[in-house]
Amino acid sequence: MPAADIHDSRGHLSALGQRIRVPPITWLMSQALRRPEMVSLAAGFTDNEFLPVEEVRAVLDRILVGQDRARRALQYGPGSGDDRLRELTAARLGSLDGKGPPVDPDSVLITNGSQQFLYMAVEALCDEGDVILVEDPTYFVFLSIMQSRGILGRGVAMEPDGLCASSLECVLERLEREGMLPRVKFLYSVTYFQNPTGRTTSLERKRRALEVLRRWEPRVGHPLYYLEDVAYRELGFPEFALPPSSLALEEHRDRVILTGTYSKPFATGIRVGFASLPPSLLDVVRRIKGNHDFGTSNLLQQILAEALESGIYDRHISGTAPHYRQKGEVMNRAIAEHFPSAVRVTRAQGGLCLWASLPGRIPTGPDSSFCRQALDRGVLYVPGEYAFCSDPGRPMPLSGMRLCFGSAEPGDIETGIGLLGGVIREQYEEEIAAIV
Amino acid sequence: MPAADIHDSRGHLSALGQRIRVPPITWLMSQALRRPEMVSLAAGFTDNEFLPVEEVRAVLDRILVGQDRARRALQYGPGSGDDRLRELTAARLGSLDGKGPPVDPDSVLITNGSQQFLYMAVEALCDEGDVILVEDPTYFVFLSIMQSRGILGRGVAMEPDGLCASSLECVLERLEREGMLPRVKFLYSVTYFQNPTGRTTSLERKRRALEVLRRWEPRVGHPLYYLEDVAYRELGFPEFALPPSSLALEEHRDRVILTGTYSKPFATGIRVGFASLPPSLLDVVRRIKGNHDFGTSNLLQQILAEALESGIYDRHISGTAPHYRQKGEVMNRAIAEHFPSAVRVTRAQGGLCLWASLPGRIPTGPDSSFCRQALDRGVLYVPGEYAFCSDPGRPMPLSGMRLCFGSAEPGDIETGIGLLGGVIREQYEEEIAAIV
Repeated sequence: MPAADIHDSRGHLSALGQRIRVPPITWLMSQALRRPEMVSLAAGFTDNEFLPVEEVRAVLDRILVGQDRARRALQYGPGSGDDRLRELTAARLGSLDGKGPPVDPDSVLITNGSQQFLYMAVEALCDEGDVILVEDPTYFVFLSIMQSRGILGRGVAMEPDGLCASSLECVLERLEREGMLPRVKFLYSVTYFQNPTGRTTSLERKRRALEVLRRWEPRVGHPLYYLEDVAYRELGFPEFALPPSSLALEEHRDRVILTGTYSKPFATGIRVGFASLPPSLLDVVRRIKGNHDFGTSNLLQQILAEALESGIYDRHISGTAPHYRQKGEVMNRAIAEHFPSAVRVTRAQGGLCLWASLPGRIPTGPDSSFCRQALDRGVLYVPGEYAFCSDPGRPMPLSGMRLCFGSAEPGDIETGIGLLGGVIREQYEEEIAAIV
Repeated sequence: MPAADIHDSRGHLSALGQRIRVPPITWLMSQALRRPEMVSLAAGFTDNEFLPVEEVRAVLDRILVGQDRARRALQYGPGSGDDRLRELTAARLGSLDGKGPPVDPDSVLITNGSQQFLYMAVEALCDEGDVILVEDPTYFVFLSIMQSRGILGRGVAMEPDGLCASSLECVLERLEREGMLPRVKFLYSVTYFQNPTGRTTSLERKRRALEVLRRWEPRVGHPLYYLEDVAYRELGFPEFALPPSSLALEEHRDRVILTGTYSKPFATGIRVGFASLPPSLLDVVRRIKGNHDFGTSNLLQQILAEALESGIYDRHISGTAPHYRQKGEVMNRAIAEHFPSAVRVTRAQGGLCLWASLPGRIPTGPDSSFCRQALDRGVLYVPGEYAFCSDPGRPMPLSGMRLCFGSAEPGDIETGIGLLGGVIREQYEEEIAAIV
């Protein structure tokens, strides 16, 4: 082979290396860079204005004050995570749930955000050609992990209060007919202010999903886990009561994998997430973590442990919640004012985003005329199709949009929604006219 | 299948999940925990006493002083790494090499220590059944990554100044005879104060290795990369002149993957590593990084960028180097005094460890009588066999020990080497007696 071919070929990469696609974020960032004046309702960031600068300074002052403690924070810690942070995490999970047996600190693993845990959970459980059941729609970076690893997705329908158990049954029946049942490994569900819909799953729906999974296990031939992603749990608007996590379902705990993060509610620049694992998976994921990085930065873990123990973390969350509520309400009101009533929208009650589905199956994808119009007017959203797995059992839903209020200014939220509303009206009128 | 079987089986895990073994670190930690009074020459940590407490405090004071800068540090940064840190890294690599073309900041990726990069490089290039060429001996956690992913190793002999090119030729010839040549992906080399031998590779040996790899590419059918791990480069003893990295070899730069870390020289609790990649791999590894965690903690990156730019990082390194030299010299002298001359040892000139090979093929593995004796006397080392890949082309070398001086007290180094020397003498005398 001539040297030029050797150099240019991608054939020497691993199957993963050859398969991995450009992530949606690349397209989103390129749009934002091309038009810096554009209103972005795409970025799933928290608000810069509410970042805990004073709080982090106070926490660091405590950590770095004595030589012994400071040195401990600057040295390696245990690969599974700092013992105190794992205890605090277990206790916090127990107290947030308010019911169910206590969470064992030994079941807890500290990670570089929940994202790293999602990656490792897929590594521990799935091979190329395996199936993960996901929500329709779901967190798009999770889909990128699956895509890169050659894992198939099957979409399960959602109701306003979470995953639909009968849709889950249908999907499993279809997989059985296709002979794919043994390839199913777990169900992935983002249960609080879901990214991208903003929906929260009731405890009852979690229970029913776990019951369906359990009932199918004999036919599948192995455990079916429920991977509950609680990343947005602590970003609820004040006074919005939240259901417990699936860890509260004692009889199902051996099938529950739960992951969450301290980064989103506190500071995204401090990447510390956690997971609680059933005994069947704990050792395996710990070993994978050892190979990834033998432990999350100890300094970051000490920051979180101190913030949690001192109450600084909770005070920060209580302090920022009203601000996020205000911005969510701005988006809710702007949508009510500017979007035609035929647009189906979820309502912001927490988290960082909500979801809109356009009427008449108007496509919203990056190459759609709708998207071009929106960009021309100066507003960016996340095209909904990024959030759906490719599933031969249903047509790809093409008309969704993820709309984020977390990092945008209230004025920009109003402007952006107004601009989008205008594009929707025009395109919708064209559709109607075409039908008539 | 009855429920109990479903619960207990590991068959539902991925191939990786089923394959991944208990890491050596688990055995080492269990020994250390069982006998807390034991002298450990096993831990590859840096010294707690030299951690930069004042320095980190000073750096954080600068980062967190203004709202804007502080908020930037507490928010997400770019997935590939902070722009300033990538520029500083590129400039630093260039100036450490002192020759060769400048390093392009766009080729630089910031990671959670060099460990995460090693993991991602393997993901990008290797499938199950592929071959990685490694040094005999090599960094044992890299072997754990390979083992978990079903990747085969082939060991290349080392000379005192690095990898032996003719051994590399032999290994490639053997792979050709086995029909395995197309499965070879890269050569992994730890080039400064290698973990575990403490050896440093000359530029000439890097050049020859790259020449051999290039010459074999037409027969292999794809690029053969040279993954140079410079993790210990900045832990050299003072006045010990270091050769440039392989990035200085301009004609081979398209085959050089280089990774290093700021954590070891500065603070292991602050996990920030880096890599410089050829264009053929950059996008792929960036995408993998996006799926792992979409970027290393921005706060940690800001700490390193500020430490580098302010000179605090360099002053810290200059300040600690004499201490590490002192401890390395304690170990060199204790070995000269206590080990029989038949023991082949490397000499500490930097890094955190050195290597000893026992005479008469006395095995040093965790189940060996030598190891039991050493533990009974109260001294722990890393059994050398952990650091060799399983290679059918040579017998497994069983008589090595990695001996670390980085975190142990000077008195403990003396004591530990003395104890080991006693066990060696006894076992060696038995061997000699058995032969006579």
